[in-house]
Amino acid sequence: MNSNYKIFPNVKLGHNVIIQDYVIIGVPPKGFDPGEIETVIGDEAVIRSHTVIYAGNAIGAHFQTGHNVMIREHNVIGYNVSIGTHSIIEHHVKIGNKVRIHSQAFIPEFSILEDGCWIGPYVVLTNAYHPLCPKAKECLKGATIKIGAKIGANSTLLPDIVIGKYSLVGAGAIVTKDVPAYKVVAGCPAKVIKDVRELKCPYNLIEKPYFGSEYE
Amino acid sequence: MNSNYKIFPNVKLGHNVIIQDYVIIGVPPKGFDPGEIETVIGDEAVIRSHTVIYAGNAIGAHFQTGHNVMIREHNVIGYNVSIGTHSIIEHHVKIGNKVRIHSQAFIPEFSILEDGCWIGPYVVLTNAYHPLCPKAKECLKGATIKIGAKIGANSTLLPDIVIGKYSLVGAGAIVTKDVPAYKVVAGCPAKVIKDVRELKCPYNLIEKPYFGSEYE
Amino acid sequence: MNSNYKIFPNVKLGHNVIIQDYVIIGVPPKGFDPGEIETVIGDEAVIRSHTVIYAGNAIGAHFQTGHNVMIREHNVIGYNVSIGTHSIIEHHVKIGNKVRIHSQAFIPEFSILEDGCWIGPYVVLTNAYHPLCPKAKECLKGATIKIGAKIGANSTLLPDIVIGKYSLVGAGAIVTKDVPAYKVVAGCPAKVIKDVRELKCPYNLIEKPYFGSEYE
Repeated sequence: MNSNYKIFPNVKLGHNVIIQDYVIIGVPPKGFDPGEIETVIGDEAVIRSHTVIYAGNAIGAHFQTGHNVMIREHNVIGYNVSIGTHSIIEHHVKIGNKVRIHSQAFIPEFSILEDGCWIGPYVVLTNAYHPLCPKAKECLKGATIKIGAKIGANSTLLPDIVIGKYSLVGAGAIVTKDVPAYKVVAGCPAKVIKDVRELKCPYNLIEKPYFGSEYE
Repeated sequence: MNSNYKIFPNVKLGHNVIIQDYVIIGVPPKGFDPGEIETVIGDEAVIRSHTVIYAGNAIGAHFQTGHNVMIREHNVIGYNVSIGTHSIIEHHVKIGNKVRIHSQAFIPEFSILEDGCWIGPYVVLTNAYHPLCPKAKECLKGATIKIGAKIGANSTLLPDIVIGKYSLVGAGAIVTKDVPAYKVVAGCPAKVIKDVRELKCPYNLIEKPYFGSEYE
Repeated sequence: MNSNYKIFPNVKLGHNVIIQDYVIIGVPPKGFDPGEIETVIGDEAVIRSHTVIYAGNAIGAHFQTGHNVMIREHNVIGYNVSIGTHSIIEHHVKIGNKVRIHSQAFIPEFSILEDGCWIGPYVVLTNAYHPLCPKAKECLKGATIKIGAKIGANSTLLPDIVIGKYSLVGAGAIVTKDVPAYKVVAGCPAKVIKDVRELKCPYNLIEKPYFGSEYE
């Protein structure tokens, strides 16, 4: 069947990239003409329907989006990254390799997502303490999610938070201060409740349910 | 006016089905060819714009979606079901009859929504305790929402939770353990605060504001 | 490049309105024929891709939507309003001038957003205490957000709440009762933690980080 999508000029697609219907790639950001800045998407990408990707992104191989993802300009995204249905990535975000962002997450400007981290569904990162402050452009600081950390569903991170490597933020938590490495935090406001190395499988299927990936 | 949408092969639409623009129905899931598995949508359905429905769904009559709903494969959905704008239904979900899912809700794999239950806007169900665990595929368990239960806006349910029949989860609650039948829970973590039969109309418009449906 | 969108009859667009691809404007609400009620969008509007606007809206000049915004019927929206990507505005909502609604917010029926207020990403307003109550149509009351108030990311407001002028709701808060003017509230349930006039810039960039706008 025919596909129906729109690609602006100066979009460089790798080999075997699949683009589904109603997708738009290479949207010029404010102040730029169509094609004025380059957009690169690596080999073997799958861009699912209704997704919008602005110009000025540099995206590695084996990239996947869900449906209706929105990615603003000037982001650097590694290889083997997936961004789930309805998620929003604002501009000037750095995303490492093998990062998985689940559905309907919000990653604002100046966030840093290191290699192998996992962002659950409906997670909201923030980057401004005082919205509409006349100095807001100078102080915007997103969260930094260190290597292998995992952020549970529908949790909220305040601006400028660092989540330590391999730490786990519980579902629905409100994270108001930095989380050290290897800790589990939960609650509103989030508090350390245990070490990730103490986590047990509730169904006794595996000895170590948390450190199973190559990022251990 | 002409409509502009895409229907894959082997999609069986009932009588008087309305399909709006930029909709895609019958998307083949991973590992399947277009048309390889059947998709059935019953009579009198309204599929609103920008909605995506994968192949392998069996959906009853009088189905309605809002705009830009995303429904993955292999779900069984009863009659008189509505799924609101921007909501996401993953795969292998069972949805009973007369279920209403409001806007931007998230229903992951293996969730069970029984007859007459109500899922509020931005509700997030989960199904995995330890994301990326190598055994995650074996332990995935969604929530079970029993008949007539109602889940308040922006609440979060941990994996494998059962919400008892006719119970009410307050807006924004984080539900970390099962809720018995007929209870109201609220807070983070959610605690039982009263029985649903004690609920009063704050405006004195009706004697019993909660048990007004045919599901009493 | 050609654009691909759909405009129903009786849509009155001002000067220099930009409409991106896969947009639909003037969708007839239930019980109305196409073009039966007027839709007005003022000068210099930018309607970004995949957005859906129903008929019966009266929208002022310099309106902006993000991508995939959904706006139901019978709303009155002032000038210089922006509504972010994936946000949902239901029907019979009043939005003043210079209001900014960020990404993926939910504004239900009968909400009132006064001049200069700010709604953060993923904010959820509600309007019904008892879903599916047979009298629900009579008691629906949305929140009222007074002039210049700011509602933090991923917070939830219960029905019929008034947020006082210039007040600030912290990220992730669950607001269960009215908030007086000039207060900062946070937590679940939200409690007053300070006065907005006590807020300090965490980076020492400015004396008053909160009252910097023309709405002081």
